[in-house]
Amino acid sequence: MVRKAKEKKATRSLVKQRKEKILASLKELGGNVCQQIDHNEFPSINMPSRSIQNILYDPVTRQYILGKTEVKRSARNVRHIRPFTQLVWTASFADELSGQSRTSTLRDVFYSAQAYEMNFIDQAESDNTITDLETVLGAAREDFNVFPEERSAIFGDLTIEYTVPGYEGKRLNLASHPDGMMIGPALTNAEFVECKAKRIIAIEKGALFTRFVEEKVHEKHKAILVQTAGQAPRATRGLIRRMSQELKLPVLILTDGDPWGMHIAMVIISGSANAAHIRELNTPDAKWGGVWATDIVDYNLPSVKLTDLDIKRLYELRKDPRYEGKLWKKEIETFLRIRKKAEQEAFSRYGLTYIVDKYLPAKLEQMKM
Amino acid sequence: MVRKAKEKKATRSLVKQRKEKILASLKELGGNVCQQIDHNEFPSINMPSRSIQNILYDPVTRQYILGKTEVKRSARNVRHIRPFTQLVWTASFADELSGQSRTSTLRDVFYSAQAYEMNFIDQAESDNTITDLETVLGAAREDFNVFPEERSAIFGDLTIEYTVPGYEGKRLNLASHPDGMMIGPALTNAEFVECKAKRIIAIEKGALFTRFVEEKVHEKHKAILVQTAGQAPRATRGLIRRMSQELKLPVLILTDGDPWGMHIAMVIISGSANAAHIRELNTPDAKWGGVWATDIVDYNLPSVKLTDLDIKRLYELRKDPRYEGKLWKKEIETFLRIRKKAEQEAFSRYGLTYIVDKYLPAKLEQMKM
Repeated sequence: MVRKAKEKKATRSLVKQRKEKILASLKELGGNVCQQIDHNEFPSINMPSRSIQNILYDPVTRQYILGKTEVKRSARNVRHIRPFTQLVWTASFADELSGQSRTSTLRDVFYSAQAYEMNFIDQAESDNTITDLETVLGAAREDFNVFPEERSAIFGDLTIEYTVPGYEGKRLNLASHPDGMMIGPALTNAEFVECKAKRIIAIEKGALFTRFVEEKVHEKHKAILVQTAGQAPRATRGLIRRMSQELKLPVLILTDGDPWGMHIAMVIISGSANAAHIRELNTPDAKWGGVWATDIVDYNLPSVKLTDLDIKRLYELRKDPRYEGKLWKKEIETFLRIRKKAEQEAFSRYGLTYIVDKYLPAKLEQMKM
Repeated sequence: MVRKAKEKKATRSLVKQRKEKILASLKELGGNVCQQIDHNEFPSINMPSRSIQNILYDPVTRQYILGKTEVKRSARNVRHIRPFTQLVWTASFADELSGQSRTSTLRDVFYSAQAYEMNFIDQAESDNTITDLETVLGAAREDFNVFPEERSAIFGDLTIEYTVPGYEGKRLNLASHPDGMMIGPALTNAEFVECKAKRIIAIEKGALFTRFVEEKVHEKHKAILVQTAGQAPRATRGLIRRMSQELKLPVLILTDGDPWGMHIAMVIISGSANAAHIRELNTPDAKWGGVWATDIVDYNLPSVKLTDLDIKRLYELRKDPRYEGKLWKKEIETFLRIRKKAEQEAFSRYGLTYIVDKYLPAKLEQMKM
């Protein structure tokens, strides 16, 4: 099915709406500060607390969220003046970035502050202020144009339309370049115009991404392929979520068969605890398709012994509320029983194309995708 | 000037020639082994030695090369039978990959061996055999379709024509996607059809790459932008060399201002000592444009103190024959004197666009580009 026309308009307004919402929130934030000063009050900003006691797992949204405890940054409190000023400056810088359609990185924000004689001791301090601003706005920093430096890639039959300056209205089909397109600010802010794909497959390893492209998984299985390159950068997680929601596509995640691979999948699905203040980065309905511990057994894969660190990590995951589900529990127990792990490339022991010819179709059927 | 028609033909034959040369070399290698067996001789393969004693710096090609000492892998010698067999299998696997236009990675080759009951103890052993094959053929492993997993990105006004299966004859302008295109097998094997750029700028950091795209450095300075993402992967170094030679474009390299950034530039320019057996990855005429130690002083950049490890590294570089030139010597001495380093993003202290508006034009003039 070709998703077109109607969906296109819907998508367009979503991108625009998000931008407008952020600019409005920033304006409101600044307006409130000005108003308080006009009323001869010490200006202050409230936000949910990010202390560990206030981070809760929410089984409904299937992610960590912040509880009801609030903190206040007030210019009345002499110990707050510094973080309050930093927060207000960061908000004004975010407004500047968004208004000019310029992007930045955490590091760049740290250095840029010096152009305004704003004083951060180190980048950790400016990073923390940006997280404060995310918490105040309830939005990811990518929404106010602060992007991670790491990039992952995408490939598949999805036509996008750019909204970034100089490219407005230009379209590109994401299957145009078989090495993959980088996922950065332009793609994050693009509209989805037309999509012939029926599913999204997120892949941890670059080697497997390239194998899938070469073996035409995008055609054979009508898949959009995303290379996460290890832990998926936030912009990539945001894009997977958007594609899944706006294009209504199921998401399959394929990682190495070890606790670290499981967690790459889990962060795409349920987000990370330290992003409990944001709700727009995870894809709760995405599924981890392997490499499972049981795959190592069933496919008799070349494997290596779990290290002490791997085992320690598995015990941590066992206690993590995000790993409550039946599948997760079974795989954690199997890893602990067989004490082995395997990489995605291990399927090459049956030939380079085995993973595409046999494993992937079996998995898609098993996962009902 | 638009480089077209005539150059296009030349380029096309270069890509094709390289592929044909590799396939012919592999055939010759296998043919020699068969011939020796037919003549009732123990088969053997000769190659230059890669021992440290045989790695020499060549001031003419401005890179490390191998000397005249040769080693022989012979089936007559019982200690050689294993590496000899591994080398012959690797050559046949390389032939299979090239013939089928499939690519692979070092890790994938290790696992694939098991499909042939070829026995490598670990990946280090299979990696070493691939390096042996590079030495025998005098070609980079990318030429026989073994690619690094890491990818960097490119952006600029260069139209390429793909040669990989399913994309033969398709064209793409590399300025089509402002987040950048990944540099992988498809781009490495593409032909250069038309180029309006006048220079190549290789950039260490993703943040600066994105800044340059957003500030239209590709238009203002007619530049092809390459993001190396730290140490440039081999496929990226190969592509920079090809663009520099086939399109006759000068190359400017911009890195962080520290010994590690200097060495990122140096490896693009002169290659690495452990790739002394290959001559097709470096770009001797590329120039390191900064961030220089003298830039830290001249621009009064925010900086941090050199660590003990940084200083140790500078003393190593001082003894390295690749760092003989006047510019390198001056910058090493300046780093050691000021004991400071600075990141590319440090220019943001003068505003986000200062590096594009002021620093880059000054640098291009200074470097006569």
